[in-house]
Amino acid sequence: MIYFDNSATTKIDASVLETYHSVSDHYYGNPSSLHQMGEQSRQLLTQSRNQIAELLKVSKEEIYFTSGGTEGDNLAIKGTALAKKEYGRHIITSTIEHPAVIESMEQLETLGWEVTYLSVDEKGQIDLDEFERSLRKDTVLVSLMAVNNETGSLQPLKEVGELLEHYPSVHFHVDAVQALGKIDLDLNHSRIDIAVFSGHKFHAPKGTGFVYVKSGRKLAPLLSGGGQETGVRNGTENVPGNVALAKALRLLMGNKKEVNQRFIDMKRSLLNYFSRLDKVTVFTPEESAPHIICFGIKNIKGEVLVHALEKQGIYISTTSACSSRKKDKTYSVKEMGYSIKEAESAVRISWSHINTQKEIDTFKNVFDAIYLQLKSIE
Amino acid sequence: MIYFDNSATTKIDASVLETYHSVSDHYYGNPSSLHQMGEQSRQLLTQSRNQIAELLKVSKEEIYFTSGGTEGDNLAIKGTALAKKEYGRHIITSTIEHPAVIESMEQLETLGWEVTYLSVDEKGQIDLDEFERSLRKDTVLVSLMAVNNETGSLQPLKEVGELLEHYPSVHFHVDAVQALGKIDLDLNHSRIDIAVFSGHKFHAPKGTGFVYVKSGRKLAPLLSGGGQETGVRNGTENVPGNVALAKALRLLMGNKKEVNQRFIDMKRSLLNYFSRLDKVTVFTPEESAPHIICFGIKNIKGEVLVHALEKQGIYISTTSACSSRKKDKTYSVKEMGYSIKEAESAVRISWSHINTQKEIDTFKNVFDAIYLQLKSIE
Repeated sequence: MIYFDNSATTKIDASVLETYHSVSDHYYGNPSSLHQMGEQSRQLLTQSRNQIAELLKVSKEEIYFTSGGTEGDNLAIKGTALAKKEYGRHIITSTIEHPAVIESMEQLETLGWEVTYLSVDEKGQIDLDEFERSLRKDTVLVSLMAVNNETGSLQPLKEVGELLEHYPSVHFHVDAVQALGKIDLDLNHSRIDIAVFSGHKFHAPKGTGFVYVKSGRKLAPLLSGGGQETGVRNGTENVPGNVALAKALRLLMGNKKEVNQRFIDMKRSLLNYFSRLDKVTVFTPEESAPHIICFGIKNIKGEVLVHALEKQGIYISTTSACSSRKKDKTYSVKEMGYSIKEAESAVRISWSHINTQKEIDTFKNVFDAIYLQLKSIE
Repeated sequence: MIYFDNSATTKIDASVLETYHSVSDHYYGNPSSLHQMGEQSRQLLTQSRNQIAELLKVSKEEIYFTSGGTEGDNLAIKGTALAKKEYGRHIITSTIEHPAVIESMEQLETLGWEVTYLSVDEKGQIDLDEFERSLRKDTVLVSLMAVNNETGSLQPLKEVGELLEHYPSVHFHVDAVQALGKIDLDLNHSRIDIAVFSGHKFHAPKGTGFVYVKSGRKLAPLLSGGGQETGVRNGTENVPGNVALAKALRLLMGNKKEVNQRFIDMKRSLLNYFSRLDKVTVFTPEESAPHIICFGIKNIKGEVLVHALEKQGIYISTTSACSSRKKDKTYSVKEMGYSIKEAESAVRISWSHINTQKEIDTFKNVFDAIYLQLKSIE
């Protein structure tokens, strides 16, 4: 069995699960309780927050625990909109954002906010001139993903940040769910105000995540309540989940360099292979994250390819899991200028540190046969 | 060690943790993925939802998984407000709701909604006449907790439901976090439209929960995104958490009758004991949930009592954990007509099925000495 669907979700790391288990067993007090069992839980929570902050080279006050990427994106977008509603109601984003972003924008539009959706080029990138022209006096939020979840394409975050220097009060939100450990974000020295991360994308427990919010930036809470996470994210803290999350991040960042070099080699190997198959189109642009390849076989629907590979024990996705079962699919591939037919052929392979070059080689062997069979169907 | 702070949070059940562990290990596919690993996760999720629905005697389409009680309350309140904003913007609640409710109301007030906060009597109950008078044509939501988290007091939900029969379009939301397995809710035959539950209050994992939403009632999503939970609660599903949650509910409901009889006996035993101590005031009204007693020693701050008991290995809380560390504490006790000084003396003992009559007896012995010492301080 080869699991190449790590951008959809990852398997929890065995030692991270051990941590979760052990904390659940021994430290179950509510961090808000005054007694010692509460104090122990508070300390574990503080320690986890400190570890995450250190690994990202930011301040511990800038880290907020959440239930995952979707909550983080919703908090960033709706939390900014509500906090800044007196200053303006204009938001800028792109057409290839994650549904958590797009759907949040659409909800805000029903409430009187105005959203500019920037189109992207064949590299999946917005046009910087168009971006600059779309900035207005009443713009309160710019929301762009670091790494596209379907194709691995990148946005010019640094250049966007530079253009935002003249707009100091605009919140710059980055959905960094697919970027963590894969590309450098350098939050502390960037213009990024809010960055959103999801635990289950890097072998941490499902239902965990965190948000970076630059010091001084205010968000209205999405989950109002008892004052946890300094009132920005209320609700009894998931202590075992957050301790396990911090551990998974430590594992991710500790091996980053070595693993990413391996990713780059695996990606090159697979791209070389695909370049020899004339009916394969690679949608992932050259400049992209090292762990995702989006491609298709001409005139063959993505589902067909997913199921053909599955029969051979190889698990991949039709683009993003989050839109694969929706009626109105969003296709980043289509937004990049490809036809609907091409977009419908797209599948995504996404690997993690648990995958190996040997698996890539096995994939090639399996794909050889499938390719021969499918390309003759046409 | 005696843990009597189960209304703050409970220890995860060992077999529930085993389930979490095993599902995490073996079924980690994203339920939205098209392949078989996704399908397995989808099936587990469906099975968990079905189990919960069966245990609550409601339909499976009426159950939505969340990250906990705070998210559930926020979804119920803000989700109703947004879904019904064209019909009206008036909401009715009480002054002794959980901070997740009160703070959600306050956020809506800043956005133009109008909220009526009903006061409560010495039993912690709203006045039904006052409630009826507060109902208006533009009322869209009534939000009342089933069991107060600080005192265990109950609201007249049935009578409120009857008065709402003439207001079919009003959403009746009940924060049932402290009620599950403790009092009968009979959702299917009640007027309750939305009921909110939290996993960590009944030995399920932290960061899990679910909401009951009566068929036909519409909520705007709080977490917008990829279409999970039929679009009402988006975000990759916490499959191991939700399977474990369903198991914990099975355990809770399976033993309900036997355990509740034990609770009633334990409560009677402790109330009898307190009635013999002339400096002890019991704030919990006679008609109340069987697992909570709120009381205080005259002129002794709650914190002092918490720490004195803690030194003897007994863990209790100053009223609710969710407000114990906030600057602006909300005191249900104060709202019930007691003085600030009395409210400040309040502590809460809350037990669970893992507690025994023997522990109550130990508590009495320990308390004898503490009481003698503290009452002489005055």
